[in-house]
Amino acid sequence: MRTRVTDMFGIELPIFAFSHCRDVVAAVSRAGGMGVLGALYFTPEELEIELAWIDEHVDGKPYGVDVVMPASYAGADLGVDSPEDLVARLQGMIPDGHRAFVEALLAEHGVPPLSEHSEAGRVLLGWTDATARPQVETALKHPIALLANALGPPPADVVELAHARGVKVAALASTPRHAVKQVEVGVDVVVAQGTEAGGHTGEISTMVLIPQVVDAVDVPVLAAGGIGCGRQMAAGMALGAEGVWTGSLWLTVEEADTPELARQHILQATSRDTVRSRSWTGKPARLLKNAWTDAWESPESPGTLPMPLQFMLISGALRRISDYGAGELSTFPAGQIIGSMNQVKSAKDVVFELVEEYVDAIERLGRLTEG
Amino acid sequence: MRTRVTDMFGIELPIFAFSHCRDVVAAVSRAGGMGVLGALYFTPEELEIELAWIDEHVDGKPYGVDVVMPASYAGADLGVDSPEDLVARLQGMIPDGHRAFVEALLAEHGVPPLSEHSEAGRVLLGWTDATARPQVETALKHPIALLANALGPPPADVVELAHARGVKVAALASTPRHAVKQVEVGVDVVVAQGTEAGGHTGEISTMVLIPQVVDAVDVPVLAAGGIGCGRQMAAGMALGAEGVWTGSLWLTVEEADTPELARQHILQATSRDTVRSRSWTGKPARLLKNAWTDAWESPESPGTLPMPLQFMLISGALRRISDYGAGELSTFPAGQIIGSMNQVKSAKDVVFELVEEYVDAIERLGRLTEG
Repeated sequence: MRTRVTDMFGIELPIFAFSHCRDVVAAVSRAGGMGVLGALYFTPEELEIELAWIDEHVDGKPYGVDVVMPASYAGADLGVDSPEDLVARLQGMIPDGHRAFVEALLAEHGVPPLSEHSEAGRVLLGWTDATARPQVETALKHPIALLANALGPPPADVVELAHARGVKVAALASTPRHAVKQVEVGVDVVVAQGTEAGGHTGEISTMVLIPQVVDAVDVPVLAAGGIGCGRQMAAGMALGAEGVWTGSLWLTVEEADTPELARQHILQATSRDTVRSRSWTGKPARLLKNAWTDAWESPESPGTLPMPLQFMLISGALRRISDYGAGELSTFPAGQIIGSMNQVKSAKDVVFELVEEYVDAIERLGRLTEG
Repeated sequence: MRTRVTDMFGIELPIFAFSHCRDVVAAVSRAGGMGVLGALYFTPEELEIELAWIDEHVDGKPYGVDVVMPASYAGADLGVDSPEDLVARLQGMIPDGHRAFVEALLAEHGVPPLSEHSEAGRVLLGWTDATARPQVETALKHPIALLANALGPPPADVVELAHARGVKVAALASTPRHAVKQVEVGVDVVVAQGTEAGGHTGEISTMVLIPQVVDAVDVPVLAAGGIGCGRQMAAGMALGAEGVWTGSLWLTVEEADTPELARQHILQATSRDTVRSRSWTGKPARLLKNAWTDAWESPESPGTLPMPLQFMLISGALRRISDYGAGELSTFPAGQIIGSMNQVKSAKDVVFELVEEYVDAIERLGRLTEG
């Protein structure tokens, strides 16, 4: 297969795999696609370790890193550069009523308190300029081929920095207007992501969004949201995309370090078991629908807080839920394709099956017009 | 183009056009596709007139009729067969608080009362077994090729009646489970409709839904929801569909009798200007998002009533809004593709452009794998 994207990165297959797991990233790149490591959960020191590992296991194939530099978030105007100081200031912005709601919810489900306190770095994650920039600096010390940004156009100086190192920049867009803004700051590839995608996502479906974005920008577009099999890849390409961006698909592969409880939830879920909710980060994200997401929609809910306060509020709770094994409250990003993910396979097999089914779909389309 | 669907109906193009306007239905059938008249708003007598007109203007080409026989609705267990008696019983089930909320909303927007009362038939529409059956009987007196049903599997005896007259039956499904149930009662074609569609719609996107439905049933599947251009048609076919079902696309064609105010709203809307709301019929339907849909989500909202009570509650209000020209309250079904509908064209030109872009998309896909 050949598109502007395969040419740009020297890859065989225009299949991008977003994962927080280095093993998945390396496996997909080795299989001819492009693994992209989600840096969000890592401190710069941890990210350094992950990327060094990938460098050793990727057989010289290109890979990418994904950071989250939101265009807007609470505290962006505080003028605080140190992550520690920022956390302290932001903690003061979380209302007591919200803390009480979370405690009551956990108590209701029998989840005990943690014996130790959470670390500040883990509370804030890479969701601010102050915490994402060190991740970018770490990433650019490695031979990455792509720096991707979610939640708005990346800062112009970050784009320049990447380009100066010969690194291409991608950004996720959920409207054609976003895409145009991103190209204006120098983004090389737009990931047009439909509402069915897991994680932070907009309202417009992939089917409707892709042609609008393709028509709005001159750079290559990747189709994201709802891409889990070769027919869906073919559909994305038919819509005008030059490649596909996948995420949820890799949560259940053999190489993934997905917690066993979450993996079982995904394998059993239908496509109706996700919901777009602000209960994870304060911005709408598609999550596994469960008692956690329901509680934030209930009449008792105090409403969610703006990013990054919501995750700061719940990060300790998420850890307690995970430690206790309270599966009914365990929330995480998941796209609608989880309804079709019912088997554990190797990442390599998933790539091969995508391609095989893609080719079948294209051949079938050809026959329809010949007939 | 040739699929099981073109063979089944002897049509050139597997393009189905749902419209409440007879001119659109006849134009699409004459252009080689299949027009399907939405019977919902017509009394049996009116429907007879519309179908007689189509018979005279369709040049012998096949066309269809769409009815709405919901599997469940308030009053279904009352055992009342006469539409008039049913309306009287149902009117008593509408709480005064809901009537007061609608009056207050209209007063807030300066909408004056109507001088005359609404007719009973128009209050209930074809949304019950009692009101849809006479429509089916009228439809089956005409040389229709297809009887389609929304909102659940059609009653088994209606399927038998249609089959006895040589008429194929289609039904809309928003989950693979719905599709399986429909095939069990004898449906010949499943219309798998994604959440981006206008009107009554489910939660799963077209991209995710179509392969699941195609894998779940043996009958041909039409892709619906988000189909407004040839690339989207190609994507639907790539997902495994054997044709496409379109609706919103025909709201702005020259032949459509869409009120001018609504047409202007659609031409100017973006794909973010729709919302899935119960405020029209009590079941979730994608509508143009405006002050009406917002009001029903507001803290003052009394909540919506079950079908058919919600439409009975609001039908007089809708007429008053329309008569007064209160555009900010004028709600109607619209899919996300309205964001790409910016020009008025003839129905024939829309069909030809669909096919032209479809062929281009397929050829481009072929080149990608050759390259």
